[in-house]
Amino acid sequence: WEGEFFPGIPQIKYEGPSSKNPLAFKYYNAEEEVLGKKMKDWFRFSVAFWHTFRGTGGDPFGAPTKSWPWEDGTNSLKIAKRRMRANFEFINKLGVDYWCFHDRDIAPDGKTLEEANANLDEVVALAKELQGNKKVLWGTAQLFMHPRYMHGGATSSELGVYAYAAAQVKKAMEVTHYLAGENYVFWGGREGYQSLLNTDMERELNHLARFLESAVAYKKKIGFNGTLLIEPKPQEPTKHQYDWDAATTANFLRKYGLIDEFKLNIECNHATLSGHSCHHELETARINGLLGNIDANTGDPQVGWDTDQFLIDIAEATNIMLTVIRNGGIAPGGFNFDAKLRRESTDVEDLFIGHIVGMDTMARGLRNAAKLIEDGSLDELVRKRYQSFDSEIGSLVEAGKADFEFLEKKVKEWGEPKVASAKQELAEMIFQYAL
Amino acid sequence: WEGEFFPGIPQIKYEGPSSKNPLAFKYYNAEEEVLGKKMKDWFRFSVAFWHTFRGTGGDPFGAPTKSWPWEDGTNSLKIAKRRMRANFEFINKLGVDYWCFHDRDIAPDGKTLEEANANLDEVVALAKELQGNKKVLWGTAQLFMHPRYMHGGATSSELGVYAYAAAQVKKAMEVTHYLAGENYVFWGGREGYQSLLNTDMERELNHLARFLESAVAYKKKIGFNGTLLIEPKPQEPTKHQYDWDAATTANFLRKYGLIDEFKLNIECNHATLSGHSCHHELETARINGLLGNIDANTGDPQVGWDTDQFLIDIAEATNIMLTVIRNGGIAPGGFNFDAKLRRESTDVEDLFIGHIVGMDTMARGLRNAAKLIEDGSLDELVRKRYQSFDSEIGSLVEAGKADFEFLEKKVKEWGEPKVASAKQELAEMIFQYAL
Amino acid sequence: WEGEFFPGIPQIKYEGPSSKNPLAFKYYNAEEEVLGKKMKDWFRFSVAFWHTFRGTGGDPFGAPTKSWPWEDGTNSLKIAKRRMRANFEFINKLGVDYWCFHDRDIAPDGKTLEEANANLDEVVALAKELQGNKKVLWGTAQLFMHPRYMHGGATSSELGVYAYAAAQVKKAMEVTHYLAGENYVFWGGREGYQSLLNTDMERELNHLARFLESAVAYKKKIGFNGTLLIEPKPQEPTKHQYDWDAATTANFLRKYGLIDEFKLNIECNHATLSGHSCHHELETARINGLLGNIDANTGDPQVGWDTDQFLIDIAEATNIMLTVIRNGGIAPGGFNFDAKLRRESTDVEDLFIGHIVGMDTMARGLRNAAKLIEDGSLDELVRKRYQSFDSEIGSLVEAGKADFEFLEKKVKEWGEPKVASAKQELAEMIFQYAL
Amino acid sequence: WEGEFFPGIPQIKYEGPSSKNPLAFKYYNAEEEVLGKKMKDWFRFSVAFWHTFRGTGGDPFGAPTKSWPWEDGTNSLKIAKRRMRANFEFINKLGVDYWCFHDRDIAPDGKTLEEANANLDEVVALAKELQGNKKVLWGTAQLFMHPRYMHGGATSSELGVYAYAAAQVKKAMEVTHYLAGENYVFWGGREGYQSLLNTDMERELNHLARFLESAVAYKKKIGFNGTLLIEPKPQEPTKHQYDWDAATTANFLRKYGLIDEFKLNIECNHATLSGHSCHHELETARINGLLGNIDANTGDPQVGWDTDQFLIDIAEATNIMLTVIRNGGIAPGGFNFDAKLRRESTDVEDLFIGHIVGMDTMARGLRNAAKLIEDGSLDELVRKRYQSFDSEIGSLVEAGKADFEFLEKKVKEWGEPKVASAKQELAEMIFQYAL
Repeated sequence: WEGEFFPGIPQIKYEGPSSKNPLAFKYYNAEEEVLGKKMKDWFRFSVAFWHTFRGTGGDPFGAPTKSWPWEDGTNSLKIAKRRMRANFEFINKLGVDYWCFHDRDIAPDGKTLEEANANLDEVVALAKELQGNKKVLWGTAQLFMHPRYMHGGATSSELGVYAYAAAQVKKAMEVTHYLAGENYVFWGGREGYQSLLNTDMERELNHLARFLESAVAYKKKIGFNGTLLIEPKPQEPTKHQYDWDAATTANFLRKYGLIDEFKLNIECNHATLSGHSCHHELETARINGLLGNIDANTGDPQVGWDTDQFLIDIAEATNIMLTVIRNGGIAPGGFNFDAKLRRESTDVEDLFIGHIVGMDTMARGLRNAAKLIEDGSLDELVRKRYQSFDSEIGSLVEAGKADFEFLEKKVKEWGEPKVASAKQELAEMIFQYAL
Repeated sequence: WEGEFFPGIPQIKYEGPSSKNPLAFKYYNAEEEVLGKKMKDWFRFSVAFWHTFRGTGGDPFGAPTKSWPWEDGTNSLKIAKRRMRANFEFINKLGVDYWCFHDRDIAPDGKTLEEANANLDEVVALAKELQGNKKVLWGTAQLFMHPRYMHGGATSSELGVYAYAAAQVKKAMEVTHYLAGENYVFWGGREGYQSLLNTDMERELNHLARFLESAVAYKKKIGFNGTLLIEPKPQEPTKHQYDWDAATTANFLRKYGLIDEFKLNIECNHATLSGHSCHHELETARINGLLGNIDANTGDPQVGWDTDQFLIDIAEATNIMLTVIRNGGIAPGGFNFDAKLRRESTDVEDLFIGHIVGMDTMARGLRNAAKLIEDGSLDELVRKRYQSFDSEIGSLVEAGKADFEFLEKKVKEWGEPKVASAKQELAEMIFQYAL
Repeated sequence: WEGEFFPGIPQIKYEGPSSKNPLAFKYYNAEEEVLGKKMKDWFRFSVAFWHTFRGTGGDPFGAPTKSWPWEDGTNSLKIAKRRMRANFEFINKLGVDYWCFHDRDIAPDGKTLEEANANLDEVVALAKELQGNKKVLWGTAQLFMHPRYMHGGATSSELGVYAYAAAQVKKAMEVTHYLAGENYVFWGGREGYQSLLNTDMERELNHLARFLESAVAYKKKIGFNGTLLIEPKPQEPTKHQYDWDAATTANFLRKYGLIDEFKLNIECNHATLSGHSCHHELETARINGLLGNIDANTGDPQVGWDTDQFLIDIAEATNIMLTVIRNGGIAPGGFNFDAKLRRESTDVEDLFIGHIVGMDTMARGLRNAAKLIEDGSLDELVRKRYQSFDSEIGSLVEAGKADFEFLEKKVKEWGEPKVASAKQELAEMIFQYAL
Repeated sequence: WEGEFFPGIPQIKYEGPSSKNPLAFKYYNAEEEVLGKKMKDWFRFSVAFWHTFRGTGGDPFGAPTKSWPWEDGTNSLKIAKRRMRANFEFINKLGVDYWCFHDRDIAPDGKTLEEANANLDEVVALAKELQGNKKVLWGTAQLFMHPRYMHGGATSSELGVYAYAAAQVKKAMEVTHYLAGENYVFWGGREGYQSLLNTDMERELNHLARFLESAVAYKKKIGFNGTLLIEPKPQEPTKHQYDWDAATTANFLRKYGLIDEFKLNIECNHATLSGHSCHHELETARINGLLGNIDANTGDPQVGWDTDQFLIDIAEATNIMLTVIRNGGIAPGGFNFDAKLRRESTDVEDLFIGHIVGMDTMARGLRNAAKLIEDGSLDELVRKRYQSFDSEIGSLVEAGKADFEFLEKKVKEWGEPKVASAKQELAEMIFQYAL
């Protein structure tokens, strides 16, 4: 099947906020400049192959619901290639420049590593041929679906599985490099525990560190210059995952001397599952020098598992973009749509609608953030709150030159300090009026 | 008032499991040896002055409910001294060796720092006189109650408040040292944010690091050899506290080069509020070399705020003690009862009952943990799970000498790895039969 | 003090979206008609006396932070009257028509019921004199702050407390009636339990039903025609409150034959604490015929206690207004601002800013909801989803005339049913583009 | 395959607490009398066919992990029959008397309803032949797995699906009746919504009521005398399920006049997902006269989805049994093990170990509850708390004969009421010492 996979779907264009066309952008205008940079360069949007082309609509209580026309019910090489063609038609029509994949999404597994690798090579060769000016934002190895990984990959209690995971990551890095991927991701869905009673957490974490050291070494060996990214998630499928959140992951990287070799891929739904706002996780990554990529999605605030919905909250998108602007952009990372249709959304056009509303939401976030930054009153409110530290004594404090005795003396001189209002409601007002 | 404060309460004694006397221990037998150490030395139990003597029963929707006979409704020096006498009668009758305090619990605040310090000196002198062979487990400064600290102490947006916090910690460290305290705690109830919109998180964290560096310097200057402890808590009163959990705090300490100067005080209720089991937080602290003290309490699994209840869950107590035993004990830290009566418990004897059941629960935990360790089958189950790493190639992996290419070769040799059952239900069975 | 309490604050006016004036409305335009009704009549906004005039900024870890100029630190009758004058200046300047109160907010408690009632009478007489064309949206009795209510009011284990609660509600209903209040609220902050171990839940619920029956009887006796409202909240201060959520409360009312005598006061922050979206609780109340009033506030999605923040989420406000419009409005209820300043917001103007952004948010919600309704495409999407039930057989089902045998026969005729896409992403797109 | 399915597993016997044999009961002694009833009659334990024989270990991120020897990878009639034989060997060896099933667990679905029914008949005939003195605790129809049910069964937006669900329930009731089932369960996994934006909740609830009315009518028509049970669950797979918790379900049943026709099947893991303790849900069901059956399992307190673990918490088991004893037992319901092995537990013996520890846990709960009841001091503590209502005036209140005016008069006579301590810590102490 080499024809059109989405015959009813036109190239998605920007038609502006007054358009009623579901298959058009109302806010995302790729070439428009905002704060001196084109929208498309702020976002570097990427389609996630797994959700868009391998999402079946199955859930723990339900069988698959999607029956995309290009599928025939098999996981054959033939269909894998067909999907890859559909992928490029999809990202072309949507007008994004990047895609992301797991090794096992794009090509069938094999009975042996050799067979799996051969399958992967065949599909990757096609992808290389098809991708033209499209690029891989990142690739990764799927170390969670196969039963061999039930106790983990790098943290499996079985040496043979650790080795298998190493071999699989080796290959996935190679193909990511071959496809000129700009980053490589580690998501440790099984790197964690179900119960501490039967787990040697310290030994598992040591293994994880060894594994990541080897990945760094191999990256250098093959000349892959992309960023290595770790994607924190607190739990699900395991009860506890070792990359719980940004700070936990940073602690691990620092403990094992890996802090300069990795950045983080922050996912909004993972953030909220870990008890943080998405904005908090992004800021934590940023101020630890670790903000590398964003998985743009959202969860349901009342639901305790990963729903991977398309983000539609304009306020959240604005917060995200405030951090990205403060970070000077997100490249060589980007915004990957780690988001899927609801199980009950079964029309082919729904795939487009989900991505369009997601891109438009981020575009609204960027426009709002730019408005806030250009207006300046929110930044000014924050700056003023800390202005006492801009004084001479404040500078001594910040330089580590004000010891407890000196400060005690100052307190005795100064008496009870004045404490100003935090003006949170005013900050919220300024923020909201920019939406 | 220098007479008896608890006239109806006898010295609490061990009467064994068959006793029906609420004012006796059924499991905690201070001098009994378990795994080669006396029970009292495993626990080093401490009474928290604030909950036991300053807890009023007030809550955000309700006025105080307790009317302890030694109170007269004022926060005078006279009553402060009376409470201190009551404190020592209490810990003597309960048979514990330690107590913990905040500066402002034990002595009235003053209009100036000088006045507050003078008040503190007067009460501390009495405590020194009264304490005999009892000891301070840890002291701390209360940097959260006074309105000046509404934006934080070390992370306040106001320089004057930072200085005041420094002066207050300086004094609190001095009196802790004077009372031969074995540890000093930092709990940052206000060191966090309510909203990121009006907060410069990076600047605040830098200030916090400077503050802690100064504390380390001052500790050394005055010759205080006690451990400095940070007590993680995710939130409440703020929306986000910087010492969110053990891993977050460890990341902060590593980032700012403070990792060797601090340990952690893990509180079970704080653990569960951060989305972790208490056991997880203890193990995380332990394997990061940071387990310093335990605030022995529990929360309500359905409630989203700190309830600081006396721990009565035998299984949880067993898990706690498994970690403590693995850690070789908890000294120079101990088990502080950061636990309070329910607002509706208003009899003086309830203060004893709460502590007795708390101590008995921990004692059951210790006895169960010892039983598990002596039996050995749980440890054996865990050891066996990882035995493939005890092989020659496993050792290469653990030594960092097995690179991806080597491992890939092994996979090709070995074929699909065998993966054994995790035996979680068996581990749970072994664990539960020890309770 | 009979002068101006807010001398720096002008009458708040509508200046439109381009205004940068924090003390002006940008979206709320009281007299403007939306869907055939003036904005002020859609909302019937009310100021909550307790938060605005008795909120101290105190929290479980902190002392009060507010020092409003009209306070002198006492809870005297003199200051109570001064606050009442400030209240009316506040609601006049803000331009709202209603206020709400608890008995003990507005007047000092007394040593006896008689004294408390006399204090209340004196303040209420002043309020009557001052209120002019302003009205009481609802009154209520504070049955949670005084220690006598620590085990509950209507559900206290003590008969004397049950009686006291009855006497207090009797009086509060009388003064609400005297002030021409349009509703009367029951919020059962202490009507619940801390532990099932010491609680006879069934007996307590029976008492609660008796209490509410008596309230209905007394209402009728005194000719008070206002709606009786119950305000669900899942927990806090107790571990479990009997009016957990809308459905739980409806079950209670049905069980005891009280369903026709009460409606519900839905609070958004209480909704989310109970695990539901605010929209869900409003819709549940609406379709049970119980939507009576809205406490317009919001919680923090990462926080497990009642934060009572001013709502600033435009999407949530739009959902709320969709339900209110579907309900044909909210009168005789209204929108009460059960919202408070953050503890750290200590300027008098912050009181205005919080309410202004809250009113503007609701106004944006109303405008957006009207846009959605006028556009019609969201309603049409929903209507279409269920259109198979608009058929002849669908009508039989809905009329209860299609039994299992008939339906089985139809299945055999029809074969496998067609199932259309739920179009959730399209619905979200339509919704978001209206914001 | 008509031989032995579990050749290495003996008949599980009671060996008492000192046994170290994982394949023996340490606490559950079927024939032993506790409080005048045999243990087996208190529990009426049931094996859930789906978890034990159809659980694959698959999860949203992982492929199946179990490879039970009797499976051949197909869902054929042949294997269905083999599994049924394995089921009876399992429950015989385990020594339980009941089993539970969904229609589609035990027999393959068909391309048409007729084919599915024929498959079901064939397997059910075999079950009838094999079951001997074993009984069906309850049967049910699986209305959630097939994609046709993606929008619900009884609450689907599609009439054809409603009809299909009716036909399927009709058949499932027939076969439950044929197998002498003692109850029939409705679990509405898809009866709820993912988003209110595209849902007509009121219409859906009306349909649900019609559906249940028809079920009642059909039950009567075929002479099935078993109890109809509804199993509340708050969410998962949907964002919101209509049978959220016990109180929500009771409200629905009352609203639609169905309250006398149904009871509830309370599942502990569902209870905690809805924000309640399991004990709360059981007590709520009990005092509403609705306690019909218990799905004995537990969740992970830190996890936001249904983990369906075997209950191992002795304290929780004790609370459950306190309610069951208060309820006079659970018959004609029982304790169904709606619990599954962890994904990583892959040995056949793990199936037995999980059930054994679950049964032993419940047996410990029963023994502890009996000890508490025989001791009487906990009951006495509760009785005393409410004793003021046992007075003459208390009786007037409870009889609805004490109006507000009468009570106000009493308050004036009595003055400030005395309020006793709630003695929660003492209650917890008494409770824990019984464990």
